[in-house]
Amino acid sequence: MRLAVPVSGSTPKTRLASVLSPDERRDFTEAMLADVVDAVTSAGHEPEVISTAPLDCAVPVTVDDRGLDPLVNDLLASTVTDDEGALAVVMADLPLVTRESIERLLAPEADVVLAPGLGGGTNAFVCRHPEFRVDYHGASIRDHRETARDVGASVTEVDSRRLATDIDEPDDLAEVLLHSDGAAADWLKQSGFELTATGGRVDVERFR
Amino acid sequence: MRLAVPVSGSTPKTRLASVLSPDERRDFTEAMLADVVDAVTSAGHEPEVISTAPLDCAVPVTVDDRGLDPLVNDLLASTVTDDEGALAVVMADLPLVTRESIERLLAPEADVVLAPGLGGGTNAFVCRHPEFRVDYHGASIRDHRETARDVGASVTEVDSRRLATDIDEPDDLAEVLLHSDGAAADWLKQSGFELTATGGRVDVERFR
Repeated sequence: MRLAVPVSGSTPKTRLASVLSPDERRDFTEAMLADVVDAVTSAGHEPEVISTAPLDCAVPVTVDDRGLDPLVNDLLASTVTDDEGALAVVMADLPLVTRESIERLLAPEADVVLAPGLGGGTNAFVCRHPEFRVDYHGASIRDHRETARDVGASVTEVDSRRLATDIDEPDDLAEVLLHSDGAAADWLKQSGFELTATGGRVDVERFR
Repeated sequence: MRLAVPVSGSTPKTRLASVLSPDERRDFTEAMLADVVDAVTSAGHEPEVISTAPLDCAVPVTVDDRGLDPLVNDLLASTVTDDEGALAVVMADLPLVTRESIERLLAPEADVVLAPGLGGGTNAFVCRHPEFRVDYHGASIRDHRETARDVGASVTEVDSRRLATDIDEPDDLAEVLLHSDGAAADWLKQSGFELTATGGRVDVERFR
């Protein structure tokens, strides 16, 4: 199965601008990507990393500056042309993923396998249906369910917190420190981030 | 296996006070509890609902006004007395849970099975070790991992977004509308809540 990891490499993670400088956001993006590449590789697959700008990565990076929708839809059109073709797409900002969560994503035999993200996104999917296409705007998980139904594809969803946790906002950083000891967690610790427990959910603070 | 569902029934869900009145928070709490009871029942188990105050529920409710820690630790002490006893505890504010997610929680044979919540909580667990105790304050998932190790228990974690999604804050309501068609989702829709897609994650707005 072909497995693509699209990355926004040009001005990544702007919603983390309140806690990270542009250079730091780029470094953190590379650390998260390293965790995803590790998980995919240890699950026995070869990730194709496709970035909008050059990035440091342990595997070759293809630079393609198109937006996410045209990029992924082009991959779908060229890969899933008949009953044989299959494409998996895993976002690069999922530093909690493990070999097991990638295996769970790839296990079901449905035409379309969706891994919802927190807040309505679609963090990963597998497609074996030639007519399925993506649209990542808005509540994409709802649109993808509907699109899959519209083209007559069988659909299943993977119930994984690790695949659901994309790191977009400062509050999300706590999840990395709580549940990972990978490159992104190391980077956050080295950059002075620590967990702080207040009344409700755990948060992070930066101490240097 | 004994399966307890503790509920805060007296002044529930205060962190939803900006969008729900006290009476509404109580109704919504009952709707979420109904979803959890449904999931547990359809997984073939009989939930013991234990609330700090009387609540409407399809199964009998035991009223016990102790805090969560002494309540659960007392259940552990009285249930898991040897190699035979086992106790599962599932929080009542998990309206996304399904039969499958409850089955996944109960499947592993480890001494302690933890289901992390978003933000460092422990949304559900199974215990088969007579010395394991809980402390829900702060980043409880870290403390529970450590406690389990300290008493020499084998530990595993369940990677489930549905078990991880406890509904505490207004932002969490979107997850209910996105991923459930149970009682809590119905209640939100009937109370005028709708999904709104902006730039980043999906949110909810109340229209009446």
